[in-house]
Amino acid sequence: MKNNYIHVYTGNGKGKTTASIGVGIRALGADKKVCMIQFMKGRKTGELKILENLENFEVFRFGSKDFVDKKNLGEDDFRFAKEGLDKAKNIIKTERYDLVILDEINVAVDYKLIDENEIVKLINDKPKNLEIVLTGRYASKEFIKIADIVTDMKEIKHPYSNDKITRKGFEF
Amino acid sequence: MKNNYIHVYTGNGKGKTTASIGVGIRALGADKKVCMIQFMKGRKTGELKILENLENFEVFRFGSKDFVDKKNLGEDDFRFAKEGLDKAKNIIKTERYDLVILDEINVAVDYKLIDENEIVKLINDKPKNLEIVLTGRYASKEFIKIADIVTDMKEIKHPYSNDKITRKGFEF
Repeated sequence: MKNNYIHVYTGNGKGKTTASIGVGIRALGADKKVCMIQFMKGRKTGELKILENLENFEVFRFGSKDFVDKKNLGEDDFRFAKEGLDKAKNIIKTERYDLVILDEINVAVDYKLIDENEIVKLINDKPKNLEIVLTGRYASKEFIKIADIVTDMKEIKHPYSNDKITRKGFEF
Repeated sequence: MKNNYIHVYTGNGKGKTTASIGVGIRALGADKKVCMIQFMKGRKTGELKILENLENFEVFRFGSKDFVDKKNLGEDDFRFAKEGLDKAKNIIKTERYDLVILDEINVAVDYKLIDENEIVKLINDKPKNLEIVLTGRYASKEFIKIADIVTDMKEIKHPYSNDKITRKGFEF
């Protein structure tokens, strides 16, 4: 596909990060180089073990291990966000990658840990053929405006909200 | 998470299959065994090359290389669907996997290539701890009812529908 350079995965549904990982795997399959920068995530999640073993799929994480409280942001939260942003800038400048995933960047911007304009500038100045995926709830209007593809992932059914039906599925 | 055994990824947005691949990668990271059965897909897509090299992630594809026309279904379409369903039944019975992805099954059921009841039965009779992911547009009401998690992926912006904005993103 031509010109689908900026993807946004947003919404309250499950699977935004996992979807972006899938996009990364697909890109690898086309012999592309992928870099995922994770914001607001300090804890290692299971899939990292797999991704780290894949050639040409690099992951960098920036965040504390604690839950980030929007109403009570700490110095660390800002420091990690700044480090992540700096990494993103470097990564995007080097042109070593074909796809850069900025995971949870939408939330980092919504929480004002990162200035939206910094990301817009990053996107405007990016190498021509670089694809960028922005994930996270609360994608800003500006991100949606500059994106080529926006997928809103809506949870139309919550886990645990349907105990009876679930039971039926298992026990009948 | 407990009891989130049946996931549905549906809707007209991009990334349903890729999201399910991400779920698979995450499961691999938790030392689980994953099997993806793809319906209505004969052509090899790029990510297969990567998935095939991963230990404990098996992919089986059932479909012709041609586009499946809902209004003009051929014998082959039914045969492939039947083969995929048989494979799914065997795979689910053997209990060798922790996660089974039935990719595009929602479409196969919508196209009446596969009887919805067959899948419902498969789910009702599945090994207790097996997770199943159903992907594709047009998820049936019954699938949504028996699912634990349903994510509706909505495309809120189409590629190519925003040429001017895209240009701005690249050229300013």
